[in-house]
Amino acid sequence: MYIGIDVGGTNLKAGLVDEAGAILAVERTPLGTFRGPEPFAKTLAELAKAVLRKGGAEPGDIAYVGMGIPGAVEGENIVYTCNIPMRDVPLGELFRHHLDLPVLLGNDADCAAVGEWSRGAGRGTRNFAVITLGTGVGGGFILNGRLYAGGGMVGEVGHMVIQRGGMPCNCGRRGCWEAYASATALARQTQEAMAAHPESLLHTVARELGGVEGRTAFLAAERGDAAALEVCRNYVEYLAVGVTNLVNILQPEVLAVGGGVAGAPDALLMRPLRHMVEAECYPRHANKLPRILRAELGNDAGIIGAALLGNVI
Amino acid sequence: MYIGIDVGGTNLKAGLVDEAGAILAVERTPLGTFRGPEPFAKTLAELAKAVLRKGGAEPGDIAYVGMGIPGAVEGENIVYTCNIPMRDVPLGELFRHHLDLPVLLGNDADCAAVGEWSRGAGRGTRNFAVITLGTGVGGGFILNGRLYAGGGMVGEVGHMVIQRGGMPCNCGRRGCWEAYASATALARQTQEAMAAHPESLLHTVARELGGVEGRTAFLAAERGDAAALEVCRNYVEYLAVGVTNLVNILQPEVLAVGGGVAGAPDALLMRPLRHMVEAECYPRHANKLPRILRAELGNDAGIIGAALLGNVI
Repeated sequence: MYIGIDVGGTNLKAGLVDEAGAILAVERTPLGTFRGPEPFAKTLAELAKAVLRKGGAEPGDIAYVGMGIPGAVEGENIVYTCNIPMRDVPLGELFRHHLDLPVLLGNDADCAAVGEWSRGAGRGTRNFAVITLGTGVGGGFILNGRLYAGGGMVGEVGHMVIQRGGMPCNCGRRGCWEAYASATALARQTQEAMAAHPESLLHTVARELGGVEGRTAFLAAERGDAAALEVCRNYVEYLAVGVTNLVNILQPEVLAVGGGVAGAPDALLMRPLRHMVEAECYPRHANKLPRILRAELGNDAGIIGAALLGNVI
Repeated sequence: MYIGIDVGGTNLKAGLVDEAGAILAVERTPLGTFRGPEPFAKTLAELAKAVLRKGGAEPGDIAYVGMGIPGAVEGENIVYTCNIPMRDVPLGELFRHHLDLPVLLGNDADCAAVGEWSRGAGRGTRNFAVITLGTGVGGGFILNGRLYAGGGMVGEVGHMVIQRGGMPCNCGRRGCWEAYASATALARQTQEAMAAHPESLLHTVARELGGVEGRTAFLAAERGDAAALEVCRNYVEYLAVGVTNLVNILQPEVLAVGGGVAGAPDALLMRPLRHMVEAECYPRHANKLPRILRAELGNDAGIIGAALLGNVI
């Protein structure tokens, strides 16, 4: 058995996971105020002990603890995390002061890719990509049947420029895919449409939700609103540009789309996306269309992938 | 020893290559008019025999014949070639009717990547990318220390859109990197500058060369011509957008730039390119800058890489 821990920006989630990738027990704890690497490692160890207790397991049953980290990692060490202030932290060593088990670290998007590849949309493939549409646009790759993690900063697919000189991005570039295809970008596009169309149902939906979110446009479009339908169409077109780029560069057998936005109705998101990618991608010349699928595991992908890291690195 | 064959659009080149990747003998023959897969396989076998004779070797000295094919391949078979009209051709089998040796096929850009990784700019790396600036923009990847060839259509980096809605591309998309960063695009950009600047030295250089080529702008820029300098600056900026995209997606330790354009003076091409990529790429956040290098092997990369295919697949 393994323990998989998903280190999020606000919550830490641990799962007790069996060899086949099934989750046997889950525990959660808030990240809370970050007080430094040592208390952080202690919190992780306590969470691991809690999930062991909940699952009725002992440390001796566990091959290793896998952790998905929002940043760059190398072996047992954190190189750099973006939202939690850490740099060059020997997390494995600090963790073992409290719980003596081997530790494997992976980038969180990589863990999601491993999870989806092992138990979700990427099952049975040799070359697989997953993109996550959330605050930003992340990516992870299984290539030649192994996790491709490079030097720990791989898969920053959101920071691929698709519109040279376009929208400014937090990363310092202009025209990044993330500035058009993230949930954040979709909410911005929705707000722009609302300003231009005071008559649109978008206003009603936003009131019902208590604000504008990624799903606002999809909900109004489902009710037939013209302005919302246009927001959705344009958004999917932005999405298709980057997905087609990735297909042309890496030719995965399956590219899975995850994150909050992926919950949108098929007719408005996945179906037109698939259609656009198939019409433009280069492998169509050899009749080798990729399968563009919705990610299957939702938030569990991170825990499962972290737990199964040892199979793919 | 191995035989490596580089199948170009106009010439076939074969090399006798030792275990370390050194070329011991070379033979060439024109592709001529394509008369079908069987005569093509016979020509390849005769070329292989010729290079054996030239190198004083016997078929028994050869572990396999590696071939770099301008198209998609699978095992010993050609799936599809773009410029030579073949589809689903069992090339290895046809070849062995004339010379009984094992055959390994690779995509030509992939072979160039293997060559540069084995003996050129990518030596000693685990994750390496090469791009080739020629008629189009091609790419090949060594990831996790192995060739990443996917389903045979990998590395179509030229067909990554960097300018949504931009220049039409032969592939059917708009705004492909190739339409801005290939030698063909550079010649077009040069012609546009010539039309706008009748006083420019570009006209003189073009007359000297007997036409506008990729190097025209670099030659005039070296002589201090303002219009040419602007063409070069803009071209390098286009180049940097795609290179930075690839760095953000794949984080290679080294990205090598090959093809005719790569022969331009360092001060006008590689130095500003490096500067732009380092200023914008995502791994800079973790102080992990890729090395952006000129490819080293020129036209030999294809032969060497084809010969060493067996080490990386």
